[in-house]
Amino acid sequence: MNNTVLNYLKENRANHLTALYDFLKIPSVSTDSAFKEDVKKAGQYVYDYLKEIGFSHLETIETKGHPIIYGEYKGAGQEAPTVLLYGHYDVQPADPYDEWESDPFIPEERNGRIYARGASDDKGQVFMHLAVFEAFMKTEGKIPVNLKVVIEGEEEIGSENLYVYLNNHKEKLAADFTVISDSGMVAEGQPTILYGLKGFTGIEIEVTGPDHDLHSGMYGGAVKNPAMALAQILATMKNIDEYITVDGFYDDVENLTEKERELIKSVEGENYLKTTGTIQTVSEKGYTVKEHIMARPTFEINGMYSGYQGEGTKTIIPATATAKITCRIVPNQDPEFIQDLLEKHIMKNKPAGVKVKVKKEKLSAKAYKVEPTHPLILRAAESYKRAFNKEAVFVRMGGSIPVVEWLDDLYGNPIVLLGFGTPDDRLHSPNESFPLNSFDLGMETLVHYWSTFKKE
Amino acid sequence: MNNTVLNYLKENRANHLTALYDFLKIPSVSTDSAFKEDVKKAGQYVYDYLKEIGFSHLETIETKGHPIIYGEYKGAGQEAPTVLLYGHYDVQPADPYDEWESDPFIPEERNGRIYARGASDDKGQVFMHLAVFEAFMKTEGKIPVNLKVVIEGEEEIGSENLYVYLNNHKEKLAADFTVISDSGMVAEGQPTILYGLKGFTGIEIEVTGPDHDLHSGMYGGAVKNPAMALAQILATMKNIDEYITVDGFYDDVENLTEKERELIKSVEGENYLKTTGTIQTVSEKGYTVKEHIMARPTFEINGMYSGYQGEGTKTIIPATATAKITCRIVPNQDPEFIQDLLEKHIMKNKPAGVKVKVKKEKLSAKAYKVEPTHPLILRAAESYKRAFNKEAVFVRMGGSIPVVEWLDDLYGNPIVLLGFGTPDDRLHSPNESFPLNSFDLGMETLVHYWSTFKKE
Repeated sequence: MNNTVLNYLKENRANHLTALYDFLKIPSVSTDSAFKEDVKKAGQYVYDYLKEIGFSHLETIETKGHPIIYGEYKGAGQEAPTVLLYGHYDVQPADPYDEWESDPFIPEERNGRIYARGASDDKGQVFMHLAVFEAFMKTEGKIPVNLKVVIEGEEEIGSENLYVYLNNHKEKLAADFTVISDSGMVAEGQPTILYGLKGFTGIEIEVTGPDHDLHSGMYGGAVKNPAMALAQILATMKNIDEYITVDGFYDDVENLTEKERELIKSVEGENYLKTTGTIQTVSEKGYTVKEHIMARPTFEINGMYSGYQGEGTKTIIPATATAKITCRIVPNQDPEFIQDLLEKHIMKNKPAGVKVKVKKEKLSAKAYKVEPTHPLILRAAESYKRAFNKEAVFVRMGGSIPVVEWLDDLYGNPIVLLGFGTPDDRLHSPNESFPLNSFDLGMETLVHYWSTFKKE
Repeated sequence: MNNTVLNYLKENRANHLTALYDFLKIPSVSTDSAFKEDVKKAGQYVYDYLKEIGFSHLETIETKGHPIIYGEYKGAGQEAPTVLLYGHYDVQPADPYDEWESDPFIPEERNGRIYARGASDDKGQVFMHLAVFEAFMKTEGKIPVNLKVVIEGEEEIGSENLYVYLNNHKEKLAADFTVISDSGMVAEGQPTILYGLKGFTGIEIEVTGPDHDLHSGMYGGAVKNPAMALAQILATMKNIDEYITVDGFYDDVENLTEKERELIKSVEGENYLKTTGTIQTVSEKGYTVKEHIMARPTFEINGMYSGYQGEGTKTIIPATATAKITCRIVPNQDPEFIQDLLEKHIMKNKPAGVKVKVKKEKLSAKAYKVEPTHPLILRAAESYKRAFNKEAVFVRMGGSIPVVEWLDDLYGNPIVLLGFGTPDDRLHSPNESFPLNSFDLGMETLVHYWSTFKKE
């Protein structure tokens, strides 16, 4: 029944890939102010595309940071549902550059994948929606649902300004439900319904000792080494059983039910040794890797630096040492409360002779969980199955999408996560990529999904 | 009796400062290959100066790394002693550049000090010898001692090639004793006889987890975080009492005698809170700061790095984490043995799920101690006193000069350390400087010292 639309996508595949590559070529790195203009360009790309395919009301909403692109489509008629579609056009930094096999901002096709920063997270998946809308408009003259499209440029830095916008425009953005494609599947070709996401919070620890780098011979024995002080602090926060040894950290964590453990067990996990390249997987004592990733909180050092990092040796006692830390949290844990616990623990455990500052990252979100049996979710499972010719699995994932929690909190509409990424995509890492298989079958899934809302 | 020589130095002070500044302007950073040509230029500067003032035999000795400058003076005659003079023309890196109040390689005079990288360590002190030799030649037509001058360009990176040279040219470099000016005084204007130096050894720890940076949401709970693994390892190596908790580390350390504790106590120490800018001094439990610096071994993290260090947050699990560590060791401790102990401890304490590599730095030296009552030492004390008009104090210091230990080991000649640096010089740090007072009175001290060898 959707053959005309699907055929259009097949016939225009080459053009669509070219158009996607133009999108990916824009280095829209939101975290680094040096790329501000490029971020703007990427937003403009979305704006122009929506305009081109006939969206009525279009806006570039300026914010304190990067702009939000908004577009409306009302052509589906009164009785058709209105869908809020969310995505982001910004990307993670590409460094370390020299670890990329091809330029992060010159897309390249290798072994059935598109290699580029943002290919999977999230430009590639945003583009798939644009192309599918285009296909409906060009073939059937209309899209089966009314749309309110919100594509932001600050997802990788916390979506602060999006939150303000969502909070101030509840009526304008009112919809029957929300669709987001910024997630993945448990394996390439395996349709996956995400019914739970982790929340997220972060801090930065800065340890200061002397007010300048000191000669380690002249002053070794006179001052506390800030790098050692930081190591000693961090070592009190997690033990070798991967248990987070911060007072109260687990107090609000709900225990895993046997039923959910069964469900998690039933999901065919990826080959973690292969996808991570580690010599041995490590998870919290008493929990499997899949259980830890899906349902247990995490504490990760994202970055750590102190003193001399150049060639050769420099015999100094560094003046400062810093660690960037983020935690993924589970339902019932409160991000701000966790930040307070971390700060309290750090201050209680800091050694003498150093000053310690704990900076609480604004970026934070509660965890999210939906009912896997919701009709909108079951429609999604059905559409996946038709496209991929395989039953969908239902999983929770360790990732966080703050906007999901906010939309749930502010709007209370059902949220459908239609993700097409795969474990091999190397999100946030060198050599990010996205399978052409997901590109093709993902768009087919979207076509089927929107078509379920057609009035016969 | 030395007035003509001293007057010459007074009359030519301006010229000498200009000449010194030309020397300091050359960014001879030996540790960074980007400065290779500049290091060469600095060596050439020394060569030309020695030639200019009439040194007979001159050589630029090429090595695997940076060249050694050698110059001979035989004008003092058969009965005069022959002195081996050592110094270095290379400097530490200047980074972090933005913490310098004036350009590290554009010398500037402020509040009675010369600000520039190398002003104190060691270009400034090498230059003082050159100027003093010039003064003797221009006034008395000769220098009171015969000289074998060895000025190298790799002191800041371990003097590896110098060692080879010293080891292969024992006859050529044979001398009655050795003089080195690459050390300091306990306070500005306080003549100081250094009768002991610490040895030195270093390692680099590299921890590897996944083979690429991972998304902390997708893989948090599957792998060991290398930065946390590194912190956990480091925290096992030193406790909060500043005691190095590595099996056997202190086995060869000789206990401090009450007599030496008295001697150390008698030395007026610097104001460590002021010179280090720390909120509280910290030293090994049971030892004063001065005792720890002078006579107890140290373990310092010089640099530590892992993952994302840029603006904002990047939610990754880093692939690797690295720490650069150096230890200052005391008499009887063996550098290679200490490296082995550190490696053994690290391998024993590394957590599961990471690979750990321990790289042993070649840079290493045993500690050194001389008899404070040696006649050549007493001559030095006397010369300091005449110039600074103050009795010299006798101290051991926490710093290491590998070449001192090597010369002792290979040649066995007495070594006289005539140092004029001060605790405020900020060696190896931003805003390194050298007092004009040390420049003037230090040269006067050298004039007096060489003059004690005149035949009346």
